[in-house]
Amino acid sequence: MSESVESKSTDKSAEIICVGTELLLGDILNSNAQFLAQALAQLGIAHYYQTVVGDNPARIKSAVNQAGDRSQLLIFTGGLGPTPDDLTHETLAACFNVPLIEHPEILADITHKFAQRGRVFTENNRKQALLPEGALVLTNESGSAPGIIWQPRPGLTILTFPGVPAEMQRMWRDVAVPYLQSQGWGQTTIYSRTLRFWGVSESALAEKVNPFFDRQNPTVAPYANHGEVKLRISARASSEAEAQQLIAPVEQQLRELGGLDCYGADNDSLASVVGALLKTTQTTLAVAESCTGGGLGAIITSVPGSSSYFLGGVISYDNAIKVQLLDVSEHDLNEHGAVSDTVAKKMAAGVRSRLGTSWGLSITGVAGPDGGTDSKPVGLVYIGLAGPTAVQSFEYRFGASRGRDWIRLLSTATALDCLRRELLIKLDQ
Amino acid sequence: MSESVESKSTDKSAEIICVGTELLLGDILNSNAQFLAQALAQLGIAHYYQTVVGDNPARIKSAVNQAGDRSQLLIFTGGLGPTPDDLTHETLAACFNVPLIEHPEILADITHKFAQRGRVFTENNRKQALLPEGALVLTNESGSAPGIIWQPRPGLTILTFPGVPAEMQRMWRDVAVPYLQSQGWGQTTIYSRTLRFWGVSESALAEKVNPFFDRQNPTVAPYANHGEVKLRISARASSEAEAQQLIAPVEQQLRELGGLDCYGADNDSLASVVGALLKTTQTTLAVAESCTGGGLGAIITSVPGSSSYFLGGVISYDNAIKVQLLDVSEHDLNEHGAVSDTVAKKMAAGVRSRLGTSWGLSITGVAGPDGGTDSKPVGLVYIGLAGPTAVQSFEYRFGASRGRDWIRLLSTATALDCLRRELLIKLDQ
Repeated sequence: MSESVESKSTDKSAEIICVGTELLLGDILNSNAQFLAQALAQLGIAHYYQTVVGDNPARIKSAVNQAGDRSQLLIFTGGLGPTPDDLTHETLAACFNVPLIEHPEILADITHKFAQRGRVFTENNRKQALLPEGALVLTNESGSAPGIIWQPRPGLTILTFPGVPAEMQRMWRDVAVPYLQSQGWGQTTIYSRTLRFWGVSESALAEKVNPFFDRQNPTVAPYANHGEVKLRISARASSEAEAQQLIAPVEQQLRELGGLDCYGADNDSLASVVGALLKTTQTTLAVAESCTGGGLGAIITSVPGSSSYFLGGVISYDNAIKVQLLDVSEHDLNEHGAVSDTVAKKMAAGVRSRLGTSWGLSITGVAGPDGGTDSKPVGLVYIGLAGPTAVQSFEYRFGASRGRDWIRLLSTATALDCLRRELLIKLDQ
Repeated sequence: MSESVESKSTDKSAEIICVGTELLLGDILNSNAQFLAQALAQLGIAHYYQTVVGDNPARIKSAVNQAGDRSQLLIFTGGLGPTPDDLTHETLAACFNVPLIEHPEILADITHKFAQRGRVFTENNRKQALLPEGALVLTNESGSAPGIIWQPRPGLTILTFPGVPAEMQRMWRDVAVPYLQSQGWGQTTIYSRTLRFWGVSESALAEKVNPFFDRQNPTVAPYANHGEVKLRISARASSEAEAQQLIAPVEQQLRELGGLDCYGADNDSLASVVGALLKTTQTTLAVAESCTGGGLGAIITSVPGSSSYFLGGVISYDNAIKVQLLDVSEHDLNEHGAVSDTVAKKMAAGVRSRLGTSWGLSITGVAGPDGGTDSKPVGLVYIGLAGPTAVQSFEYRFGASRGRDWIRLLSTATALDCLRRELLIKLDQ
């Protein structure tokens, strides 16, 4: 990806320095770096380097010196805790030759928080109140370790955060962002709108929208994961409203080109979009699941308020349950097999009838790794859809190479997409 | 965390350098860094710095020079693709003043792979066959971009990998590890065994096992996430067998201290452990789910072979379905409410009876964010367990603060744990 999308501000840039031996051991994923990188991009602050070092004073110092030579804003995470390995503030003080000063208000705050949670303040915690002379407190509402806002010398700003993601993110949003904006950092903003597609491959979609990839502002970038394809439209402007004005016409054109494959944007999910369509059409849904074992119902009910359109369903993992609760016949099973369009249709119609819903949605397939045959290989999945006017089935071959979890994931998403398209057709009528 | 757990090898260390502007924009999580960090720890190779830079020659060069001054093994990810932004190999060649050499065998391989997948070889792809003079090919079986194994000067080894995690990991395991071991890197190995606990808090468990946290070899470290607590026992030795000998007595002591709270180790999950117990006891299971919507069935069936003990279940999201399919009475619902121990027991007994299984496991609760009251707040969940000799229910209050998904996750895991403990009691008899 070209760096032209990075900020045009040539003078001021920010670096992220993550402190923690657990990162060097690979114990945890560095999600803090991603959050902060996104946050810097959002503010329009140039960002060219990220560094990870362990809980080691000499190497932290080396990272500070190196970063301080080339960047004007240094953002640290980690090393603010009460244990002997937490060294960030004392090392920063040593880097810039200042003493550590104890802040009584921090001591009081930590003592109070501990009392509230029934924990005991220990001497270890005392060091969390020691900050480099001249540093301001970067308040941590959620935890015991405050960070700092510090300008150890003109032209260099240091912000420190604990390593706990939830605490760091809250401090960033509540304290750091307003501070940075007040200091003239982030005069422009990037605003993005992500369109989501299902049922089209990344390359097929890219072919349709190819000319958009060369645009400068807004830019359009494709992403693919979990079977889904996304197009992210990003605009840089001096306000969110202005950025949205740049994005809107591009979004409209991309939606036209994408057609029905575009199911939503940003935080939409197939489940939330289907839920909205069920509410609009005032129809209800029940599911009949074999190989997905309940995963379809689970994803449908992940949407708050789904009880207004989703009644429930039957997990007919064993064939006997298909017969007993879904009115699939032994004959169907013997003649066609559980993984067949016939049985998928019967399951869908059966649960629709039994639970008295407008729609019945079923999944039956070979999730693997065992159970595949030449005629019915691993990854073969049938989706059944029973509605007021018809019962349909759809056949998919997801392949065996990506495994059982992938096949089950694709099955539930694809089932929702079948229903989505059917509901859109219904709405059009 | 103290750096004493890092390798004692003082001379040779490795750095990870991840190239990619998408990392600086926060578009993706840096999972490659975590994988490689774990891999280096596994091999016992000292590792003190990680760097992320964008697709920018000057800054890649700066990172190379800096790293080359202080480390002997540099591991690069990213920048090996066919687009103009992919600059790793040409920048490395420039760093060390060598020309790029075209490798006809790579060209042939890429052409062949593309033909297999119905893709067209373009001029862009040609640059992927250009490697620094003197570099060996680090073969990429899964994708089109090969990496390199290169010693641009004595005492400095460079390995490069594509950014695609699956490709990088395969190349690391198949090619890089044997190469490094042949070159004398990684003379000791770290072997870890992780014990998994459910139903105990991190602090309560830590209190029981506290003396173990001071040990040196093996070390014991606590981790907590997703409601689960883990203890990782890590031993460094010159062979895996030797490391396991160090670990075994510690594992035994920790398991004794942990008691029934310890449900398994390493890749065990509550679902897999319950599955094994059902097989051992030759009993079968059905589920009745309300607020979890199918998530319990989904997690049970994520285990391959679960069809030998799991028959299915009923997703009774709506109360009418509880009545119709689980023989819960309207009276129960009116008198006690859907979220009650009475209804949990009826649901469990009902699905056990209807599906003819040994066990019936039910979940009914308030997942939120809406639907809570003073007497039945968000996070109140009842688990019902019906077996051959009794029907029981268990009440939990998971709290509202961590949200709907968290409550549903804890509910399914806790339900499995209830069944696990019951099965262990049964086995003991």
